[in-house]
Amino acid sequence: MKSVGVAILGLGVVGSGTYRILTEHREFYRRTQGIDISVESVLEINRQRAIDLGVEESKVSDNIAEVVSNPNVDIVVEVIGGVEPAKSFVLAALHSGKTVITSNKELFCKYWFELEKAAKRTHAGLYYEASCVGGVPIIRTLIDGMQANVVRSLTGIINGTTNYILTRMAREGLGYAEVLKDAQALGYAEKNPTADVEGFDAAYKLSILASLAFHTKVPLDKIYREGITEISRADIAYGEELGYVLKLLAIGKCDAEDKIEVRVHPAFIRKDHPLASVNDSFNAVFLQGDSVGDIMLYGRGAGALPTGSAIVSDIIYAATHTDHKYATFKNTQLPEKGVRFVTDFSSRYYIRFTAHDRAGVLAKVAGIFAKYNISIVDFIQKGEDIDRTQKEDLGGNIPIILITHKTSEFSVRRAVEKISALEDVAQVNSVIRVEG
Amino acid sequence: MKSVGVAILGLGVVGSGTYRILTEHREFYRRTQGIDISVESVLEINRQRAIDLGVEESKVSDNIAEVVSNPNVDIVVEVIGGVEPAKSFVLAALHSGKTVITSNKELFCKYWFELEKAAKRTHAGLYYEASCVGGVPIIRTLIDGMQANVVRSLTGIINGTTNYILTRMAREGLGYAEVLKDAQALGYAEKNPTADVEGFDAAYKLSILASLAFHTKVPLDKIYREGITEISRADIAYGEELGYVLKLLAIGKCDAEDKIEVRVHPAFIRKDHPLASVNDSFNAVFLQGDSVGDIMLYGRGAGALPTGSAIVSDIIYAATHTDHKYATFKNTQLPEKGVRFVTDFSSRYYIRFTAHDRAGVLAKVAGIFAKYNISIVDFIQKGEDIDRTQKEDLGGNIPIILITHKTSEFSVRRAVEKISALEDVAQVNSVIRVEG
Repeated sequence: MKSVGVAILGLGVVGSGTYRILTEHREFYRRTQGIDISVESVLEINRQRAIDLGVEESKVSDNIAEVVSNPNVDIVVEVIGGVEPAKSFVLAALHSGKTVITSNKELFCKYWFELEKAAKRTHAGLYYEASCVGGVPIIRTLIDGMQANVVRSLTGIINGTTNYILTRMAREGLGYAEVLKDAQALGYAEKNPTADVEGFDAAYKLSILASLAFHTKVPLDKIYREGITEISRADIAYGEELGYVLKLLAIGKCDAEDKIEVRVHPAFIRKDHPLASVNDSFNAVFLQGDSVGDIMLYGRGAGALPTGSAIVSDIIYAATHTDHKYATFKNTQLPEKGVRFVTDFSSRYYIRFTAHDRAGVLAKVAGIFAKYNISIVDFIQKGEDIDRTQKEDLGGNIPIILITHKTSEFSVRRAVEKISALEDVAQVNSVIRVEG
Repeated sequence: MKSVGVAILGLGVVGSGTYRILTEHREFYRRTQGIDISVESVLEINRQRAIDLGVEESKVSDNIAEVVSNPNVDIVVEVIGGVEPAKSFVLAALHSGKTVITSNKELFCKYWFELEKAAKRTHAGLYYEASCVGGVPIIRTLIDGMQANVVRSLTGIINGTTNYILTRMAREGLGYAEVLKDAQALGYAEKNPTADVEGFDAAYKLSILASLAFHTKVPLDKIYREGITEISRADIAYGEELGYVLKLLAIGKCDAEDKIEVRVHPAFIRKDHPLASVNDSFNAVFLQGDSVGDIMLYGRGAGALPTGSAIVSDIIYAATHTDHKYATFKNTQLPEKGVRFVTDFSSRYYIRFTAHDRAGVLAKVAGIFAKYNISIVDFIQKGEDIDRTQKEDLGGNIPIILITHKTSEFSVRRAVEKISALEDVAQVNSVIRVEG
């Protein structure tokens, strides 16, 4: 039977989950995969944590050189997170010819090509299923399942924290700050929630997924990013009335002329869209391929065991496939020739503003929209009948909600500026994109 | 650049779709995968059909020996369907050392081991992603994505025809016969719809999926099977009132003692279950792994291009992975030692019967349930207020609907027999399992 020795760098949440899966399933993998996978080394400064987990003391190290030079180690699992020291450790492992498996989306999306170059040089494997959407096999699906297709679009709910917050705001009619506090207490959000709620985490993942889907480098700085901190429960309630659910979406599109748009922002989607029922901390990625049509993958995007499951599936894959495949696009830090990134993308828009209750306001607003060639699909004016979830103080004004046809982001921004300046308009409260 | 020559056996719906994808994407695969895939041979009795599709006349053959001995052919795609002559053709290709890719679920589930033995003998690849759930990469996910997990259950909507029929019955309040006729006219159902509506097609696929998920042979004859021909719109409407959607489910479960239950039958699932919103001809498979938790894959289960997409993804996979991996369980025609198949499985049950409007009937029915240790969760008695979708002639009787707690199939069957025999009961109209 083939034996495979594994080193785990870092016994945090994911590292401990991986250790647990590997040790509890060792016999199962011997039986079903014909491989004997043993944890031969653990890099962890907190020795006691390792020992408490059941690691033999002789296998705990605080020295990366020792770990990567260990002849019993074939595969190094990096689950430290962040750029340094993770990057140096991964490079050290690759230089020693060890296959590396990582869950580190930030490292991977920023230094993918440097890592891949190092892996190619020593013919080591480099696997990163766990970097995106936890236990959902989205990377493998893009590399080994959808490769027959020209992928035209990718739409994902790929951050569990924000989906949990938005689900609870919608279900319980609560405000953002209130739910965030609760999510932090329950461990669904970090003390410093910026990476999640401002969309950075989703942007890292989108950079990786879009690069694979569109076969070209999609740099992080090309991704438009907007978080959920400004979302009010009023918008969620009005959206619901119009048949929409609010989600933080990661969107990638590539048209026939290789123009790519990539963006992370809150957006309304129709209630009957498959992504609309992805709730709580669940994640999903919806893909459109030219042959396969629509497909969606759904599951847990984070957590010790789901992410550990992705890491172990990479370990088994690396151990049973001797020819390592690298990213399918060219080994360059730049997008391929001919690829352009769209900054003025198109969408439909939900616009909520508050007006003094005067007859003329709608005509003026309509005039501004007409000037920018924006046409309106749906319209709600809330006279006295203010929705019960709408608890903001309106100071005698009335809320007006519009949904536009598909139009350019820049036109909408200019139109909104003009509307804000109208004497009859107290405030433009929110502008939210409407997708799918 | 690596060159790969493909032969396609049969230019029916899937064969033509595969041919189209391969020829239209040839340049795309050269660029993104670094492989030049050409169709070198086509086995098709109807020469004209091949020529009309654009195949060079010199590449059309009606002789399998000629096709499999062609030195330009590396990979043989079998898309004929059915057992013979597909089986002989596939074996001929494998004997010649050609890798085989098939969409043939019936052949594969019945002769998997014979085919795999032949493939191993000549070190040829054997791939069958297209045999189950069309363009959804469920086979690859089970083999290369979920292999870190002990899979405890698999629940699928894996037949597009029946899902289309049930979706329209629910949406439009129509009867089975009416929708079937329409589905046949629209090409969603075959002239002879038996394989789909009686659950044979779903059973073939379940045999393959459950074998992979549970790492043991799950023979077709161990699968309990019941079709959708007896489903009435009344049950769909009552179910909806209780918060359920009716689907034809393929269910596989494996408990900690390696007891396996596999069944295909109509079942109610809660409206908020991820499978409940899988509508029309879409398919989905919901899996529960011990590490990853719940995951679901959703997409088109059939059609020329979605199924062709799965075949081409197998071609690319076979061309870029030199070490072919065979099924992960032992090469035997029998289930592994220790595996037992459960015939008396457990479920919750929806039972509808028609009673004369007499006070005593419920007490008697409750007595029968108590005798068989069946407890009741939900109960509706429709006095005068018969649902408007309930158009059956009740002859002055009243419909009574019960939903039970989890109980054994055998107990329910016996209880239903006793209830049928009650003088006050006109008829037991339906017994439908309630899952998820």
